[in-house]
Amino acid sequence: MTHRHKVIFDTDPGVDDAMALCFLTRRPEFDLLAVTTVHGNLDIGTVTRNALWLAERLALDVPVAMGAATPLVRPAGAGVPHVHGAGGLGDLTPPAHLARTIDPRPAWQVIVDMVRAHPHEVTLIAIGPLTNLALALRHDPGIAELVAGVSLMGGAFGTHGHSGNVSPVAEANILSDPEAADLVMTAPWTVTILGLDVTQQVVMDAAYLDRLEERGGPDGAFLRAVSRFYQGFHERSRGLAGIFAHDSLAVIQVMAPHLFTLRHGPVRVVCGGLADGQTIQKPVGVPGAPAPAWDGAPSCAVAVDVDVGGVLALYADTFIV
Amino acid sequence: MTHRHKVIFDTDPGVDDAMALCFLTRRPEFDLLAVTTVHGNLDIGTVTRNALWLAERLALDVPVAMGAATPLVRPAGAGVPHVHGAGGLGDLTPPAHLARTIDPRPAWQVIVDMVRAHPHEVTLIAIGPLTNLALALRHDPGIAELVAGVSLMGGAFGTHGHSGNVSPVAEANILSDPEAADLVMTAPWTVTILGLDVTQQVVMDAAYLDRLEERGGPDGAFLRAVSRFYQGFHERSRGLAGIFAHDSLAVIQVMAPHLFTLRHGPVRVVCGGLADGQTIQKPVGVPGAPAPAWDGAPSCAVAVDVDVGGVLALYADTFIV
Repeated sequence: MTHRHKVIFDTDPGVDDAMALCFLTRRPEFDLLAVTTVHGNLDIGTVTRNALWLAERLALDVPVAMGAATPLVRPAGAGVPHVHGAGGLGDLTPPAHLARTIDPRPAWQVIVDMVRAHPHEVTLIAIGPLTNLALALRHDPGIAELVAGVSLMGGAFGTHGHSGNVSPVAEANILSDPEAADLVMTAPWTVTILGLDVTQQVVMDAAYLDRLEERGGPDGAFLRAVSRFYQGFHERSRGLAGIFAHDSLAVIQVMAPHLFTLRHGPVRVVCGGLADGQTIQKPVGVPGAPAPAWDGAPSCAVAVDVDVGGVLALYADTFIV
Repeated sequence: MTHRHKVIFDTDPGVDDAMALCFLTRRPEFDLLAVTTVHGNLDIGTVTRNALWLAERLALDVPVAMGAATPLVRPAGAGVPHVHGAGGLGDLTPPAHLARTIDPRPAWQVIVDMVRAHPHEVTLIAIGPLTNLALALRHDPGIAELVAGVSLMGGAFGTHGHSGNVSPVAEANILSDPEAADLVMTAPWTVTILGLDVTQQVVMDAAYLDRLEERGGPDGAFLRAVSRFYQGFHERSRGLAGIFAHDSLAVIQVMAPHLFTLRHGPVRVVCGGLADGQTIQKPVGVPGAPAPAWDGAPSCAVAVDVDVGGVLALYADTFIV
């Protein structure tokens, strides 16, 4: 191993968050520095408790820091227990007593500290609302030029007919804090965006999840157990006998970028109105529309295609040894 | 001929407007009742003068009425002389003296009068900003249930990668009056929308336009002459050796709907913000996103595919006899 990616994992667990973290911790390509939590799938207390339990379960020797309880400028949302279960991890519930405790620093401070401690080395993997990253930028704008990159799950860019999942144009993570997302996407760092355009292409069907359980040892059994309620949601809402991989793609993209096709160009996030939370890219090299709100903003990389078989094989092979 | 479509032609000529009107007047399927003008490609005075000249040139025995000089709630735009030429008809200029005069009624009044005079028979073909239609609805909401339908050129729905032409998400006619467009698309009438998703698929290339000139008689020669400047714009801005058919598709759809694939569902128009002027449909039968701003609004038909060869043949065959 010549190079390990130092990463901070910013998360609102969340079933697919748990599946992404489980994958990350089994891969030698990653050097996990911290787990930071953020409001989103459920309230900050619940998702932080879930993160602590996951850290304990996965024996992670890194800080777990609690992040923003609310979006930057809006009140907290209601969460989505119908998607992730009442406690956020499907049918699973953390035990009443957890040995692990929370780092005393707020999440944004942990991000700033880690990035400053390892200049140009840290990749931020952000798979919830982008409030913590925006707060870190606000407190210390200089970190933008000191991170290795940002890989985030969020947004929908309308390719392949993949529009929003919480409005006709908005994706859940982004609509949970559009103002933060716009700050993150227009900051001078390298952002790679895994939106519904690719995450809804990668379906882990029931047979795939069953195989993880049968042949993936204790971690595989955990993946199957944590995903059952989530699968039920996909079945009820979409007639899909499986789940979208969603958050895991933001992890996989860091270690296996060759599995994705990226489109480059500035991205802005709509704040307010009918299109609230929509992510809009002005791709470079596409003729036509002048776009003063985009021109001059840093370019982001938006994933518009994915090697579905490659992603599914990489994920499964990480557990089935 | 068992049935002729009674139509009102609402327009801001405009090169492709002129080409659409020229086509319409040569087709026996249409019974043109009136031409109404609207601000858009250029100021209302200029486009109205162009409409009068076209009416004279095409010997139209119908009223030409002047419509709105400004959008419903915004100041007038600057027009797009770089697209349609300084006078709006490419390199052509109306003569100083025109025999035809303007109908004394405002455009919205002509629309209301005609629809009331021919209940359930009139189709509104709208190929400019939708201000006149919105004003007609405001003055007489009852007309919505008395028109045969509305066929309009405008909008961009992001299929096939066709996003906006005046912003990353907005099309020119709609962004010229988003508030009017939202009223038109949510009124209880049957609206069919020909947006960039289909109009940018239909390219009349230089050879096609040359053939119209060579074999299309005086009208064909006019089409070639009026389109040269417009072709230059397409070449400069898109490297396209030809022009998009745009407005003619709103005419063709009325007489040859079999050439289009329609997607049904409510459409709303974003008013303000980064996505100003974006048209967003919530297609029926697509699972996922709840959308209170769409649910309950009438369904519109959005053209998402077009028989390009069929459209080009129909248009050319109308002139080459």
